[in-house]
Amino acid sequence: MPGTVTVREVMEAHRTPSPLDRDLLERCITECSECAGTCTSCADASLAEPDILELVRCIRLCLDCGDMCIATGRILTRQTTPDPGVLRAAVEACATACRVSGDECERHAAHHEHCRLCAESCRRCEEACDALAAAIG
Amino acid sequence: MPGTVTVREVMEAHRTPSPLDRDLLERCITECSECAGTCTSCADASLAEPDILELVRCIRLCLDCGDMCIATGRILTRQTTPDPGVLRAAVEACATACRVSGDECERHAAHHEHCRLCAESCRRCEEACDALAAAIG
Amino acid sequence: MPGTVTVREVMEAHRTPSPLDRDLLERCITECSECAGTCTSCADASLAEPDILELVRCIRLCLDCGDMCIATGRILTRQTTPDPGVLRAAVEACATACRVSGDECERHAAHHEHCRLCAESCRRCEEACDALAAAIG
Amino acid sequence: MPGTVTVREVMEAHRTPSPLDRDLLERCITECSECAGTCTSCADASLAEPDILELVRCIRLCLDCGDMCIATGRILTRQTTPDPGVLRAAVEACATACRVSGDECERHAAHHEHCRLCAESCRRCEEACDALAAAIG
Repeated sequence: MPGTVTVREVMEAHRTPSPLDRDLLERCITECSECAGTCTSCADASLAEPDILELVRCIRLCLDCGDMCIATGRILTRQTTPDPGVLRAAVEACATACRVSGDECERHAAHHEHCRLCAESCRRCEEACDALAAAIG
Repeated sequence: MPGTVTVREVMEAHRTPSPLDRDLLERCITECSECAGTCTSCADASLAEPDILELVRCIRLCLDCGDMCIATGRILTRQTTPDPGVLRAAVEACATACRVSGDECERHAAHHEHCRLCAESCRRCEEACDALAAAIG
Repeated sequence: MPGTVTVREVMEAHRTPSPLDRDLLERCITECSECAGTCTSCADASLAEPDILELVRCIRLCLDCGDMCIATGRILTRQTTPDPGVLRAAVEACATACRVSGDECERHAAHHEHCRLCAESCRRCEEACDALAAAIG
Repeated sequence: MPGTVTVREVMEAHRTPSPLDRDLLERCITECSECAGTCTSCADASLAEPDILELVRCIRLCLDCGDMCIATGRILTRQTTPDPGVLRAAVEACATACRVSGDECERHAAHHEHCRLCAESCRRCEEACDALAAAIG
């Protein structure tokens, strides 16, 4: 996947790169981008299921999580004059959205492969946000 | 402005409206929408200023704040099976983004009317987020 | 609604305001912001309806329209070195999304007040986009 | 990059996958996601350059392109009851935004590595959008 490599490369070409641990930061940006995609896709796949009535909370929470992942990924990508408080607030809110969405998707993992995969993606993003939050201090 | 009236009307047509205080919720959604717009506009207006080098941090923080306001406004607009933890995390992150962006815009308020107005908008959104966070408990 | 008044005020404080007709531009930005909200709210209200299986296409199209309205509203709000081709492409895509979403909501207007209101909002946004596209030339 | 693999996997778990050519669709979604990231990063890196006054148009167009890529990537990711007219309008608008942003970044490629990389990313996304638009017919 050349895509994310390029995002990293563009970030590395920044005149004043972020002082945050590079691996933790890149991992979090990558996971936010992935989780935004899997949540959008899982909400959409759930819309097409015959048991949609069982999936309403899953759809709603995936929409929330997708929105928060987009915002957080963008905020983390910016390296010019970052504000640690804003970064921390964003990754903490994103970790919460991922945790709640992942919990709900997990409940449907046995019946819906898209929920199983989305739960995995939410967990990875939650962990990446938690790790970055700890690094921000 | 017929626009926001209609958003409120659509929300009132929801079969299971949010249990949150209606005025606090609507105010917060309105302020998130406004602040998303004023931050986008202030970042853009700052790009056109001759003293842009003084406004770099303002631009960056307004971009962050605009992104967080969009995500938070969408999450608050959804009333189906809301998760209080996700709502609280979002409004708290948004309040932080608004506070930091408002502080920076305030520093330029004497020289740039767009910063003065945007600082006001950030304050109103911050207060609306704080009030809603308190109501979520 | 003080909100959008402030967005307009911030835009008016821009050093080099857009050469586009101010009323058409402001109307389009206002309608994009409203339609983004009503589509988010209508998709969400539809999720809570017992006849959700009849509303799946409505939900999907409202999600699409909400995303396009957000992007278009932001692009229109920026007045620094605008590119007419990008502005035109955005408002044309937005008009299409609004038309299709409005048509679908219209089909459910008799049974769901949120669809009736959202259809109205989509129409207004479609018209505002068409009018602005014509002005861009 | 495990991320996009998972997005593809979630999309493949959809009960009624898109009738569009799978490779063209996945490529376009991947490129929209990447280009959204590179444009956010390039606009941010440009903010930190001493010759920022030369980069104002680049920043503005990258912000536009990033917004359009986010909206288009989300719309393309949804496979439930897609509307071909909306898909086509989105990818056409995205191709336009990528072309204009890529042209501007190209002008600064010799002096700024982030612009060179972002121009490449914009080109790839533009081509992916054009190819998908042709497939939609």
